[in-house]
Amino acid sequence: MLHKNRLFTPGPTPLLPAAQNAMAAFTAHHRTADFKALFQRVLADMKEFVGTKNDVLVLACSGTGVMEAAVSNLTSPHDSVLVLTAGKFGERWTGLGRAFGCRVEELAVPYGETFSLDEVGARLSFNTRAVFVQATESSTGVRHDIEGIAKLVRARSDETLLVVDAITGLGTTHLDVDGWGIDFIIGGSQKALMMPPGLAYCAVSERSWRSMEKTTSPRYYFDLRKERKSAAKGETAYTPATSLFAALGAALDFVRAMGKGDLSGGREALVNNAELCAAMTRAGAKQLGLKLYASSPAAALTAICAPEGIDSGKIVKQFREWFDAVVANGQGEMKGKIFRIAHIGYYDYLDTIGILGALEHVLARVTDKNVEYGAAVRAAQEVYARALGEKPQLVNA
Amino acid sequence: MLHKNRLFTPGPTPLLPAAQNAMAAFTAHHRTADFKALFQRVLADMKEFVGTKNDVLVLACSGTGVMEAAVSNLTSPHDSVLVLTAGKFGERWTGLGRAFGCRVEELAVPYGETFSLDEVGARLSFNTRAVFVQATESSTGVRHDIEGIAKLVRARSDETLLVVDAITGLGTTHLDVDGWGIDFIIGGSQKALMMPPGLAYCAVSERSWRSMEKTTSPRYYFDLRKERKSAAKGETAYTPATSLFAALGAALDFVRAMGKGDLSGGREALVNNAELCAAMTRAGAKQLGLKLYASSPAAALTAICAPEGIDSGKIVKQFREWFDAVVANGQGEMKGKIFRIAHIGYYDYLDTIGILGALEHVLARVTDKNVEYGAAVRAAQEVYARALGEKPQLVNA
Repeated sequence: MLHKNRLFTPGPTPLLPAAQNAMAAFTAHHRTADFKALFQRVLADMKEFVGTKNDVLVLACSGTGVMEAAVSNLTSPHDSVLVLTAGKFGERWTGLGRAFGCRVEELAVPYGETFSLDEVGARLSFNTRAVFVQATESSTGVRHDIEGIAKLVRARSDETLLVVDAITGLGTTHLDVDGWGIDFIIGGSQKALMMPPGLAYCAVSERSWRSMEKTTSPRYYFDLRKERKSAAKGETAYTPATSLFAALGAALDFVRAMGKGDLSGGREALVNNAELCAAMTRAGAKQLGLKLYASSPAAALTAICAPEGIDSGKIVKQFREWFDAVVANGQGEMKGKIFRIAHIGYYDYLDTIGILGALEHVLARVTDKNVEYGAAVRAAQEVYARALGEKPQLVNA
Repeated sequence: MLHKNRLFTPGPTPLLPAAQNAMAAFTAHHRTADFKALFQRVLADMKEFVGTKNDVLVLACSGTGVMEAAVSNLTSPHDSVLVLTAGKFGERWTGLGRAFGCRVEELAVPYGETFSLDEVGARLSFNTRAVFVQATESSTGVRHDIEGIAKLVRARSDETLLVVDAITGLGTTHLDVDGWGIDFIIGGSQKALMMPPGLAYCAVSERSWRSMEKTTSPRYYFDLRKERKSAAKGETAYTPATSLFAALGAALDFVRAMGKGDLSGGREALVNNAELCAAMTRAGAKQLGLKLYASSPAAALTAICAPEGIDSGKIVKQFREWFDAVVANGQGEMKGKIFRIAHIGYYDYLDTIGILGALEHVLARVTDKNVEYGAAVRAAQEVYARALGEKPQLVNA
């Protein structure tokens, strides 16, 4: 059977055709009025997309590049920082903090779990320079309580910075950046913005800018003060990834159209879309007797435990071989134990129902147990029908 | 919810991304060695795709343009021709024959039906200049027995030409053009070739070329002898639709890859794909208690009767409004009575399962009857599992 190659991975995600076209068509040089106009429009739109009055900067790098920028711009060697870690991306904060000579205190919870706010509060001290956390931990599919964590940080000290890796979180979960007092929030192009990898962005609070005047960690390409100065003149410090800016412009237009002319409304529509796809997928997986890995599942992706005795790599392989659908295996010690289906950005009803139908065939192939065809799909359809206010026409239910 | 605009119409059909990219990138002038090389490669490949040793010509027009070319090149005013008609496209043959002054005899069967071979045989006479028929009647979803009809025509007279509109048939149904003795077969770009509209093609037998020496109907743009002479020199008579040729080249590469390096194998793989998508869709529709319209359904599309008392336009509208999925209403007197879901070209498992899931919601919205979610999907999954040799793990079945 013909199979279309489809990504169900938590980044890169499916590409928006309008973004692909814009990217392919763009040829302008980066030091021209044409690019400047695009650049300025995109930066202004990005503030609305992120939902902040803070400066937003867009850099040519992966999300990890801007994670490094957060550490190298906001800390000095020997600074005390608190890393809240619950997976591979939490551990990346620890690695970055140590690389730049910080005294890293880790609050680590087991994979699949999230933090107790009491414990977070207990670990915060007045000399904590910064708290680093993920909005959603893509390696385990967990959603962290950023609002709760932000309240604790803001209540403790005016000097402690809250840094949130929202690379998979922005556009898949509700985040009130300014209202909650998030000082530094990070996103990436290959996520809810429906574009290829290559751009990452951050929103930087006034508190962050002030602290950058004093920090001494080495940085050059990722020196955000330089980038901010250039942005004020309508340009980037170094050569920007021009075609990706064109794609970003098109993606933002699409998000605005989703919000009927309002970009922040569009972002909320994207979030609701991911929430619905995720709720459908969770219901489908449960109906098949599968266990969800995350105690507090994110809308960005659903991490599902492989059935007892089955390597999840086999499931990932069957999806690829039979359907050309790319789902993600677990990472690190979760490899072989879980598989992950993403809902970030450009997914719709047909994608979600299709991948659940495929999951039923995959399970039938890898397990001895009977799989009732249509069962996961039906459970997802019931979630959809309830969510969209469709009259519930359920037989056998 | 976010919805991707998806065509489930029997042309235009979903576009192959590689064809889109080739089309967007192509800039060569048509009287250059670059275009000549592309043109010659495409014509050679098209013979393999159609499965014929006859000349294949590719013209800048819609399928109807090449239908006209068949009539204007193969007949003279007052010639007797037999039109086998079972729907709107059969009627188009009658209109064309009359426009060019032929004496048109019609063998018409009711919409949704196909011809009895006995009746076809009875209508053939020794002075029938040509027989015009569809391989699949897209307006009703019916498949005609071209092999049987060809046997009758070939047995009756060596001078009668068999002209087959296979615009939706090529790449969705098995056709042995040379083996069965089809004199003129017609295809279009916006069907199984997964491209936009704008090109149509035909394979022309030696018998057809001989008869063209004598026919007197007026033609200029569609003069196929002129086109054949130009093609022998590696060019077209008039300006070709260059970017669509580039798309066609890419589409043929894709079909060849489907056949693991063999274009005719790729065409058969496309046919099998359409057959499987169609079988899944028929099983799903029946499971929901819906009636199929066609007595002998084509793989190109499935025509489904709207439930008693429901206008099929309402169903089409609900598909569009709730899922941005474009399915086709009936045409002419079938409008409001049937809706049509296509399987031509670039469709896969996820598309098919997705549209059946959507159909269940649409039905739940337009009827009073209970709709069992997942029922159509399950029936389709069982067809898929049996066809692909997957172990049948069926509970409640």
